[in-house]
Formats: sequence, C-alpha cells, structure tokens
Amino acid sequence: MEQKSFQDYYPDELNYCYGCGRLNEHGLQLKTYWDNDETVSVYTPKPHHMAIPGYVYGGLIASLIDCHGTSTAAAAAYRTDNREMDTEPPFRFVTASLQVDYLKPTPLGVPLEIRGKVKEIKGRKVIVEATLTANGELCAKGLVVAVQMPEKMLKPNT
Amino acid sequence: MEQKSFQDYYPDELNYCYGCGRLNEHGLQLKTYWDNDETVSVYTPKPHHMAIPGYVYGGLIASLIDCHGTSTAAAAAYRTDNREMDTEPPFRFVTASLQVDYLKPTPLGVPLEIRGKVKEIKGRKVIVEATLTANGELCAKGLVVAVQMPEKMLKPNT
Repeated sequence: MEQKSFQDYYPDELNYCYGCGRLNEHGLQLKTYWDNDETVSVYTPKPHHMAIPGYVYGGLIASLIDCHGTSTAAAAAYRTDNREMDTEPPFRFVTASLQVDYLKPTPLGVPLEIRGKVKEIKGRKVIVEATLTANGELCAKGLVVAVQMPEKMLKPNT
Repeated sequence: MEQKSFQDYYPDELNYCYGCGRLNEHGLQLKTYWDNDETVSVYTPKPHHMAIPGYVYGGLIASLIDCHGTSTAAAAAYRTDNREMDTEPPFRFVTASLQVDYLKPTPLGVPLEIRGKVKEIKGRKVIVEATLTANGELCAKGLVVAVQMPEKMLKPNT
C-alpha cells in the first residue's frame, strides 16, 4: 500500500494551494512524508522553472521550502497531539515568515530533495528548518515560521 | 512611447527567468520600473495562484519579491555606475538570501504592487527592501540580498 502524503490528508476545501494542493491541477502538487523525525519532499522542476538556462529559479525554491514548512508544521502538530492525520479538527498552517539562503546555484533537470526538521513548537506556532539538495549537494537552506490558520480563513463564508 | 522595464534590457540569453524573463512564455513575466528612488512592479495573480480559496499562495509572493529584488539590484548598479541599462557589460544579479514576512492574508483577484528601496550597495552585493500591497494594504515585507551573477553562470558554455 502506498504511503499517503501529508497533503493527502488536507480537507478538500483546503487542498487547492498552488504549491502543494492535491486539487490544484495547475500547481506543483508537492508531497511530503515523514522519514523518522525528519520530513521529506521530492520535486523535479519543469524545464520552464529556470532562472537562467541550466539553473532553477529562486522563487520555486522558496515555494518548495514554504509548502514543505507548512505541511511539516501540520504533521508535527498532529504528532504532538498524538492524533492521526485523518482526525478532526484539521490542522492547517500558514506562513508567518520565510527565510531562504541560496548557497549555490541549483541545477535544473534533477529531482530536488527538501528535508525539514521541527525546531520549535509553541502554541499555534511551529518553526521548521529546511534544506534543499540536488544530486546530494546542499543548494539552499530555509527557515519557516508557520502559524495555525485563523478560523476565519478556514471558514471564509461563515 | 511606453517606458521599458528593467527586464526589457536583460540580454536575451539571460531573459528566461520564470519569475521575470521576457522570453519565458510559461512564467510570470514581472516588469519593474523606477518611480523616483523606489522601484515598482505590479502583478495580478492568476486564479490558480491560491493558497486557499480567496487568498494568494505564499510562494508566489516570495517569487515576486525575489525577482523584484534582483531587478532592482541590477537597475541600482547601473545608476551607481552612471550607465544606461542598454550599455555593456550587462548587470545581472542572483539572490543570496530572501526574507519574507507575511503580515496579513493577501487577497486573490486584485493587482499586487511590489515596491523596492535600495538599502545598501557594497561591491557586488545589493540589499533591497520590498513591500507588497493589495488594495492599498500592506500584506508582506521582504528583504533581498542580491549578488552580481558569477561570470561562469553568465557564460555557462565557456
């Protein structure tokens, strides 16, 4: 049986994110999983995701780290609560701040591996450290401060 | 005569960036201009650029601030050198680090205005502060540390 990603557990109405929504047919559809105490996503950029020929554009790297961070935050919140990810109410996080350090040019045409570690959980806030590697080489580091989504965003029509 | 954007001056071979390349038909094609001592770009997200219905996804905001920052850095470098943007050699910058603070949810469906100010120019490095507003409200702030592109990236085949 194939393992379900964090995003597969998002409620349908919150599953349209361009970066990681399962239901956004135009989006990146990032998938994130536990790997022991780390989280991992793998994404292979499209040819048009270039900065200059041969290299990935920085905005995509920021997007991957962003969505990897918020999904890691949600998964960590379930773990902290000793709850399965298919239980109610759902945890969904938004980004309060994003820091990306571009350490070396990221080659285009190979899978990028994004790994996350939870640095801190405090109340509704989760801080996630992330790395992005290509061909085993560290290309970027990120820090995502994620906060639990306000109720008014979860239910915009109420 | 319509004013040319910074990106219109990029050499063709460096004009394929997904965020701001004039020649990337799949990309965002961000255009940036001087407005006195500030720089300004306006971009209206597509409906699929959502985080959840009604709101823009954070990765797009990071992408816009990123490309706004590197184009501002290039324009500032020409100004500092008292050179027109169509003179050789071209200035092109890459991002060393990107910080985005998401201050409030960014509504989808309206133009986003990104404004930049050069905070510091030192050697090959330019630091740009940016704001992103929607409907006149500040939704995000950014800081881009841009560095002049290494020559080996400018001429990958040499």
